[in-house]
Amino acid sequence: MVNIHDVAAQKREEREAKLSTYRKGCIHVPSGADLSQYPLRKLTETERIIVHCDATAIVDLIRKRVYTAQDVLRAFVKVAVAAQDVTNCLSEVLLDEAFLQASKLDRYLEKTGKVIGPLHGLPVSIKDHIKIKGLDTSSGYLGWAYKTVADRDALVVEILRNAGAILYVKTQTPQTLLSLETDNNVFGKTVNPFNRNLTPGGSSGGEGALIACHGSPLGVGTDIGGSIRIPAAHCGLYGLKGSVARLPHSGLLGSHDGMDAIVGCVGPLARSARDLELFCRIMLDAEPWLNEPSLLEMPWKRDVANGEGLPDKLAIAILFDDGVVAPHPPITQALNKYKHALARAGHDVIEWQAVDHQHGWDLIAKLYLLDGGAEYHETIRAGGESEVPQTEWILKHAQGRDPYTPTDLFKLNLEREAFRSKALTHWNSTQQRTVSRRPVDAILCPVAPTLAPPHNTTSWWGYTSHWNLLDLPGVVFPVDRFTATSSATYPPLPHSRNDVENFIHNQWNPTTYDNAPICLQLVGRRHNEEKLLAMLNVLEKVFKENAL
Amino acid sequence: MVNIHDVAAQKREEREAKLSTYRKGCIHVPSGADLSQYPLRKLTETERIIVHCDATAIVDLIRKRVYTAQDVLRAFVKVAVAAQDVTNCLSEVLLDEAFLQASKLDRYLEKTGKVIGPLHGLPVSIKDHIKIKGLDTSSGYLGWAYKTVADRDALVVEILRNAGAILYVKTQTPQTLLSLETDNNVFGKTVNPFNRNLTPGGSSGGEGALIACHGSPLGVGTDIGGSIRIPAAHCGLYGLKGSVARLPHSGLLGSHDGMDAIVGCVGPLARSARDLELFCRIMLDAEPWLNEPSLLEMPWKRDVANGEGLPDKLAIAILFDDGVVAPHPPITQALNKYKHALARAGHDVIEWQAVDHQHGWDLIAKLYLLDGGAEYHETIRAGGESEVPQTEWILKHAQGRDPYTPTDLFKLNLEREAFRSKALTHWNSTQQRTVSRRPVDAILCPVAPTLAPPHNTTSWWGYTSHWNLLDLPGVVFPVDRFTATSSATYPPLPHSRNDVENFIHNQWNPTTYDNAPICLQLVGRRHNEEKLLAMLNVLEKVFKENAL
Repeated sequence: MVNIHDVAAQKREEREAKLSTYRKGCIHVPSGADLSQYPLRKLTETERIIVHCDATAIVDLIRKRVYTAQDVLRAFVKVAVAAQDVTNCLSEVLLDEAFLQASKLDRYLEKTGKVIGPLHGLPVSIKDHIKIKGLDTSSGYLGWAYKTVADRDALVVEILRNAGAILYVKTQTPQTLLSLETDNNVFGKTVNPFNRNLTPGGSSGGEGALIACHGSPLGVGTDIGGSIRIPAAHCGLYGLKGSVARLPHSGLLGSHDGMDAIVGCVGPLARSARDLELFCRIMLDAEPWLNEPSLLEMPWKRDVANGEGLPDKLAIAILFDDGVVAPHPPITQALNKYKHALARAGHDVIEWQAVDHQHGWDLIAKLYLLDGGAEYHETIRAGGESEVPQTEWILKHAQGRDPYTPTDLFKLNLEREAFRSKALTHWNSTQQRTVSRRPVDAILCPVAPTLAPPHNTTSWWGYTSHWNLLDLPGVVFPVDRFTATSSATYPPLPHSRNDVENFIHNQWNPTTYDNAPICLQLVGRRHNEEKLLAMLNVLEKVFKENAL
Repeated sequence: MVNIHDVAAQKREEREAKLSTYRKGCIHVPSGADLSQYPLRKLTETERIIVHCDATAIVDLIRKRVYTAQDVLRAFVKVAVAAQDVTNCLSEVLLDEAFLQASKLDRYLEKTGKVIGPLHGLPVSIKDHIKIKGLDTSSGYLGWAYKTVADRDALVVEILRNAGAILYVKTQTPQTLLSLETDNNVFGKTVNPFNRNLTPGGSSGGEGALIACHGSPLGVGTDIGGSIRIPAAHCGLYGLKGSVARLPHSGLLGSHDGMDAIVGCVGPLARSARDLELFCRIMLDAEPWLNEPSLLEMPWKRDVANGEGLPDKLAIAILFDDGVVAPHPPITQALNKYKHALARAGHDVIEWQAVDHQHGWDLIAKLYLLDGGAEYHETIRAGGESEVPQTEWILKHAQGRDPYTPTDLFKLNLEREAFRSKALTHWNSTQQRTVSRRPVDAILCPVAPTLAPPHNTTSWWGYTSHWNLLDLPGVVFPVDRFTATSSATYPPLPHSRNDVENFIHNQWNPTTYDNAPICLQLVGRRHNEEKLLAMLNVLEKVFKENAL
């Protein structure tokens, strides 16, 4: 029998072996919290330009033959290797295959003058539990390492390949995947490049850290409670969680396969809003519903995403406080800046009155753990490993509870539908408070009550899981970076209303969050991903032109 | 404590009291099997014209003031009362309210020159378990009688009201609703007007019998295993079961509320294909997703329903035999007639190779009864009533089985998704066999292995429940009426492959099915209700012009 520590060691050694060929020189990770610039230090000027391009620009530049696919891949690989060194963001590595593919693509373009698809030559990073044929899919479980070699690509991967994308790395996920940090016993903990004392978020935390370092122009994550949006927020990126069943979701490995009381979503993490649109367009133009029966036949409306039909003046509701945990001051400040910028630009801004976030959390936590957590416990036990702290935290929500019966489940489903109805009625009723007498177009809100928190302290999901429970699309976008200056003063936090809020408010200390990104979240109506992205464009423009 | 027989007697007396005012003279139900003409016997010439119009024509004639809403209602009520007398198709009656509403609508049109909505003055019948505010919703359970007075309208009812429709009767459903016949201990058994020895089908059997008698121009049913399509077929009507979550579904009373492993659909039963389109259009033009959160934001594409984008030559696959129960000769003959008519008109016709209908049935029967049938048994026991034969038949599928655990459920869901994937791949692969090299546009198939069967003998759902399991839209349409002539000869049925087929093949005797309608079913791709109806128009035209 293989010692479990040997399994982890072997996984890490193999990863290192595949990376070392591409690492020029030894690892010299300096001390210090902020290592976000470290991965860029050895780039040529051209490489530096390339890795600062977004995916849309990259595919354009390759198509125009400004850069070859190999140029682009070489730049991102250089950064990705160093990003791994400072954040531990990677899981599986397939650089040799990637360079082979890049050279094929270059030859094809050279020979035919044509790209093979709209993502010709674009390196795309993939979250570990999304299957890539021939690669292990341990997904944060020690017991799965070397036992989960994928026999086929996930649908999202297949579409990316067909579009000409190059797969080159898979990225770290937490044990169980049901975590908003990224820590497991296979590869260890992933840290935030802007401040290594902080988490990059999770469960798509490897993506967050890698893209924040400029080690990938576009990444694919998944989100069932915040797992795309939280790492996007904690790493200063764009991230989209769409409505359930809009984007391809088949070919994932994870616990609770077949659980559909709450369903996760595949989605992009990127460096620009337009890259989110690009990703969705590529996915839906491939008509994935002809391949994955649970997907909605709802083609991508590019014109709507580009703003067609959008009201001249938007009506935006801002959620400042979910009634459970009021956010830390930098987040409230960011919301206020947006509020004033929107108002100055003549948009209609009202306050969003929170709808039972505590009840929503209690309900979704039950739906996550219908079997009382049995499968998670069993998988961890079978792997001979221990629970990482955030696993303990989430599983204690079902501690001592029996698995639900079908009758219990029917009741929980009804409770979920009643919750959704209540929220929908609430949304419709905002028409009584807008100038236009239309219901609001979107909700602007925090992504979490804190900026990227110190490791193992994430304790409130209510600003993201709420929208999973309601199946509303949410997009995260960067606003600023936080700097802990001694001169700044912040308004005092309100009196804590519960233990969780008390814990999180006690965490507030500007120094802790130094250099952490500040992001916000825009939430739209169900199935309106296109309009959501169009509104994000308006908001960012308004902010640029009107923020004081 | 009220004697349970008193409850049933009281329900029936109250129904009779509300009907008797509108019945001219006493009940004189003649003997004989075919009483389909009986309800028309006392109509004036104008009334006879009215009740032979479809819903589309009726709303047009009211709008043009050829008839008033009261004229129309009077005609349908006269027939509905007699239809009740011969088929026992009604449950709740609200004729007084309906006439009040009709007179209001007439005054409004007279005064303003405008209709209040696209269904101005159209009487619409509603299946019993769909809530109408203020009315009892016993839904075939004795224990629910007088205890289930609805405090609000179902969404479909609300939309109908807003469109100007007049609600005047609710219609019979079977005990449990999970039945393809219509029998319960509250109001008794509903029979087929074309041959009272046969069932009108179920669970929307009251609708089927009523509309077949011309007692309603348009009815609303529900379907989770065939409950719209089977009564449409056995009563010679049009009936549509769409994809899950396209049409409003909230505000229904029934067992297993909150069960979403398999979800039912609301849909129309009508006398013309265009009325199905009218119903869907009215429902989706009301943007019901702004009211019911689980609905898809998928507006009705009227142009597609009218044939826009339809290929000149369709590719149709015909399912002659599902591999479990080969249909009785009249059904096979009807399929063959369509096959030849389509071929003569130059359409591409191939055979659909059945995908595991037995496995599909075994699986969906598990999903119907996740709790082992406990809730059904309990509701029946609590009402102090006994199981009707078809209840016994369906519940024996879970006899002695424990309720499933969450782990079991996840596995069943995976099995369902694998089944859907297999069928989708199979559909896509038909492109290898078509002339155009496109996958087939639709599947033409039986609705059941028999025409309307003798009461209490329905024993194979596989031609309808299969499409519920796959969540594909299916539309039923009439082809002919069967006449048992002594001179006709039929090809012998193949050797039976199993007990169910043996039972059903032993049932085959032309005399038994004398005067039963012959219908077929057209099945489309998921979410393609518009294209499905457009194809049905093509098929009916082709048949009219090319059938020998």
